[in-house]
Amino acid sequence: MFMTEEKFTGGESGRSLRAKGRREQILDAASECFVREGFHGASIARISKLSGMSPGHIYHFFDNKEAIVKGIVERMVVRWLELLQPYPTNLDVVPLIAERARIAATERTRPDFVGLWLEVLAETARNTAVASAVHEADRTIRVAITEQVRYIRAARGVRNDTPIEAVIEVVLGIFEGLTNRSIANPDFNCRAVDDVMMVSLRAALEA
Amino acid sequence: MFMTEEKFTGGESGRSLRAKGRREQILDAASECFVREGFHGASIARISKLSGMSPGHIYHFFDNKEAIVKGIVERMVVRWLELLQPYPTNLDVVPLIAERARIAATERTRPDFVGLWLEVLAETARNTAVASAVHEADRTIRVAITEQVRYIRAARGVRNDTPIEAVIEVVLGIFEGLTNRSIANPDFNCRAVDDVMMVSLRAALEA
Repeated sequence: MFMTEEKFTGGESGRSLRAKGRREQILDAASECFVREGFHGASIARISKLSGMSPGHIYHFFDNKEAIVKGIVERMVVRWLELLQPYPTNLDVVPLIAERARIAATERTRPDFVGLWLEVLAETARNTAVASAVHEADRTIRVAITEQVRYIRAARGVRNDTPIEAVIEVVLGIFEGLTNRSIANPDFNCRAVDDVMMVSLRAALEA
Repeated sequence: MFMTEEKFTGGESGRSLRAKGRREQILDAASECFVREGFHGASIARISKLSGMSPGHIYHFFDNKEAIVKGIVERMVVRWLELLQPYPTNLDVVPLIAERARIAATERTRPDFVGLWLEVLAETARNTAVASAVHEADRTIRVAITEQVRYIRAARGVRNDTPIEAVIEVVLGIFEGLTNRSIANPDFNCRAVDDVMMVSLRAALEA
């Protein structure tokens, strides 16, 4: 299981809900800090100031900055899993895939997401704790998308020997690629590339 | 023009060549520092130690860390332009595209490239000097790839209204995506995704 038990375990549900709210507040503030100052520049003191919570309060929820990154990455997984929910059966899946793909592309090219995700990936290259969180998250996403791709391939009558792992890498890669393009090209326009993205995505799904 | 005049202008060619060698040495050392410690962690002092050159010597070539990043990004552009050289005419371009695409995919998923490029992109999100270098580099690459894509589309008999800018974003995005996938999934294997990548790439080129 990817989701780890919360360090904070609220007694009654109201307390638990408030804790969840405060935990989210810390993750929001930390995300902003990481984008602005980078993982190394962002200190617990700065996150404390931005979230309006004391460092002690932050340490109540998270052991260190790596644990905060893990929390941020887990939120991204939750979003992917929402977009990878099973499709209703007996429907043409193509328009449904297209709709969700457009949502994913839009969300993953928003400046706040882009800055945060690139910072997390850059840190993955040099920080084993962050790498472990990202790799675990990625495994969860790959499991979910494997089921979806199997379903789509069956629904589309695709029957061949192309390894599903390769299809998934290219499918996930297409979204990752748009993230990078949106920062490398200041004139990048997600809407304008939608149609070509869908053509490429379908080709990979039917490869 | 993307390539800026060198700060160092060697007198005779031997001196100029040695300067080029020393400049490359600084870029190599800085690249390693950025990957290991991030842009902010990497100091001129650290780059000096790793390159075996004095800080004064480094400042002789580069005004600041941003100028070093610009130098690093310019080297990446040179490589893209090599891979985007015109194809020989009267030949089936598909195998030629496939060959170059495989080379690009392999190079852009090597750990040293991945760590460096992600650090540069993350810094692009918060540093206007780095952003300006990356955006200028990207413009140069887009100009070169536009010519290539026009040529490929003509050679393949593709005639439609799909904006070439959208095709280029998806094509470049496919390579960018593999970079990110190679770090998010520790089991990523570039060779294994080659074929699906080519299917997606061709679909985008013929969209």
